[in-house]
Amino acid sequence: MRPAERVRVDLGARGYDILIGPGLMRQLGSRVLDLTPARRLPIVTDSHVAGHHLPPLVASFEAAGLEPAPIILPPGEGSKDFATLQHLVSELLALDVSRKGLVLALGGGVIGDLAGFAAAILKRGVPFLQLPTTLLAMVDSSVGGKTAINVPAGKNLVGAFHQPAMVIADTDVLATLPDREMRAGYAEVVKYGLLGDAAFFAWLEAHGAGVLARSPPDLARAIATSVRAKARIVEQDEQETGDIRALLNLGHTFGHALEAETGFSDRLLHGEAVAIGMAQAFRFSARLGLCSTDDARRVEAHLAARGLATRLPLPAESLLRHMLHDKKRDERGLPFILVRGIGQAFVARDVPLQAVRAFLEAEERAA
Amino acid sequence: MRPAERVRVDLGARGYDILIGPGLMRQLGSRVLDLTPARRLPIVTDSHVAGHHLPPLVASFEAAGLEPAPIILPPGEGSKDFATLQHLVSELLALDVSRKGLVLALGGGVIGDLAGFAAAILKRGVPFLQLPTTLLAMVDSSVGGKTAINVPAGKNLVGAFHQPAMVIADTDVLATLPDREMRAGYAEVVKYGLLGDAAFFAWLEAHGAGVLARSPPDLARAIATSVRAKARIVEQDEQETGDIRALLNLGHTFGHALEAETGFSDRLLHGEAVAIGMAQAFRFSARLGLCSTDDARRVEAHLAARGLATRLPLPAESLLRHMLHDKKRDERGLPFILVRGIGQAFVARDVPLQAVRAFLEAEERAA
Repeated sequence: MRPAERVRVDLGARGYDILIGPGLMRQLGSRVLDLTPARRLPIVTDSHVAGHHLPPLVASFEAAGLEPAPIILPPGEGSKDFATLQHLVSELLALDVSRKGLVLALGGGVIGDLAGFAAAILKRGVPFLQLPTTLLAMVDSSVGGKTAINVPAGKNLVGAFHQPAMVIADTDVLATLPDREMRAGYAEVVKYGLLGDAAFFAWLEAHGAGVLARSPPDLARAIATSVRAKARIVEQDEQETGDIRALLNLGHTFGHALEAETGFSDRLLHGEAVAIGMAQAFRFSARLGLCSTDDARRVEAHLAARGLATRLPLPAESLLRHMLHDKKRDERGLPFILVRGIGQAFVARDVPLQAVRAFLEAEERAA
Repeated sequence: MRPAERVRVDLGARGYDILIGPGLMRQLGSRVLDLTPARRLPIVTDSHVAGHHLPPLVASFEAAGLEPAPIILPPGEGSKDFATLQHLVSELLALDVSRKGLVLALGGGVIGDLAGFAAAILKRGVPFLQLPTTLLAMVDSSVGGKTAINVPAGKNLVGAFHQPAMVIADTDVLATLPDREMRAGYAEVVKYGLLGDAAFFAWLEAHGAGVLARSPPDLARAIATSVRAKARIVEQDEQETGDIRALLNLGHTFGHALEAETGFSDRLLHGEAVAIGMAQAFRFSARLGLCSTDDARRVEAHLAARGLATRLPLPAESLLRHMLHDKKRDERGLPFILVRGIGQAFVARDVPLQAVRAFLEAEERAA
């Protein structure tokens, strides 16, 4: 069966395909045969995802004469730490995974980041395959090769750029995803419209409800358009050495401060923080006279229509402090992704701290 | 002051210079200014090396208006583990090292491997500078970008390919290196002659005593010729995906088994194991009719003349067992580096296990 959509990430020898559509997991066994000479295949997942999606995957592998070897980790962001990484690496070594082998990451962003990083450092690099099981992971973390764990000093501060050998986004798996997580992932879909594709944003205004209702054609188109946009950016700036890849952080600098202030807890999911952060990036850009207030209002209206909050008033001083510790900050300061309108994001490195403070104080008062 | 020798490793955007000669450490401060906009510079070293070489380096940095920040680890192979890596990464984060910063690795192979790996994964990759303080590290581990730590399953099984921003081989630092370590490093120098440069081997037969006596011109030439040979190989096969880089493992498959059997202890240093392993590779090749016994004897004679053992009879079955667990082994078997003569090494993937066993049994009997 051909996938509904196929997007190529063109990175020369590190290039790969993203396959999108229903039913892909059930036929994965035969596809994997083309990717590795290994027969024993470690499947890294968490106990929550395993309950939903592991049995059909194992069956598909066994039908193809492969030997699936599940490694089941505790669910949640807490697993993205040194101890779990070390445990995972020894499990993979115990399975005798070679540099021609293949590690499968079945799960959301936590599993993808952790298994991808383990694959990156195992024997200095083993190929891995991303099998994202959340909308957020499908349109964001599974594509582009960023892998990482968290350390006490901050999130994702230790990791590697390690591109997957393939990404399989089987839209069937989203059937069991809670609505709140669908909405959080949808925020990242909206991001691609806002940062560089006004027509896609207009399409989302018309079809976003269908995406969230998991209409197969709407889902496939939304995911494919998102990852195609991400692929074009990653191709130009694989390791975020320039400012191009930084565009993907639209809504993330504000959003990250909100997540830090709420303790990276269930109170605010990452995608929910990004939704608020994007609305803030538009309001801040409008306040600076860079973009029209009409555009800012249109963004807020669409996010709200899809059930996403666009404001979360928290103490300005605390948010500012989190921003000063953002890992994107370097000798040139903290980059802000601002907008000249819907689909027109750019990286600003000269935003005065005072302007950010005044804006955050206004946001706090608007509560 | 210009370095006595400069060798370029041409890897495109990841290319770098290796500077070789006396007095380089004392003038490093001004050189570092060209490599990074950062002013605070972490110097990763061990307590043993720090006693000898840290003060002049710190002075050089301070004279250049830089802020050196030493991170001093326990000496020895035991530091190449997950716990020390985790500790080192948090120390680097506490120093607020950015992706435009620079991590300095001052020490032998252990420090280079560990600090290089920490730099590779810190914020997904921070530039680092190799300041090797042993002959072995100068001609081998500091060049080529292999970084790693050890895990219970084996040595160097977790790591990254991360090329340094520069390698500074200050031959003055070898003045304090114990003779036994000089000889062990010299074995890797001889390797470059044996694997692909018969003229260099002949030069070593004439000047090897001068190299070991730390004659500055002999040292600079031996190191430069060695790293030039390594650079040419790494340029063709950076990540050891082909068989070219495997040539650097001449003497290492046999040698690794000897090291494993002696518990990676002070009983047998890595370079000493490589010397024996190279002699074995020549004897094995002669036994297989691939190379003349004259060449094998000439290799043994030179190693012995420079104070290196060429035989260490250990139980054949134990050595074979270690080889079967060698991390180079993959779906295609274990590659052996064999020779058709001095300067003519090649990778053999079809060596029958029975032939290896018979050879090792003969070696054991020859005791």
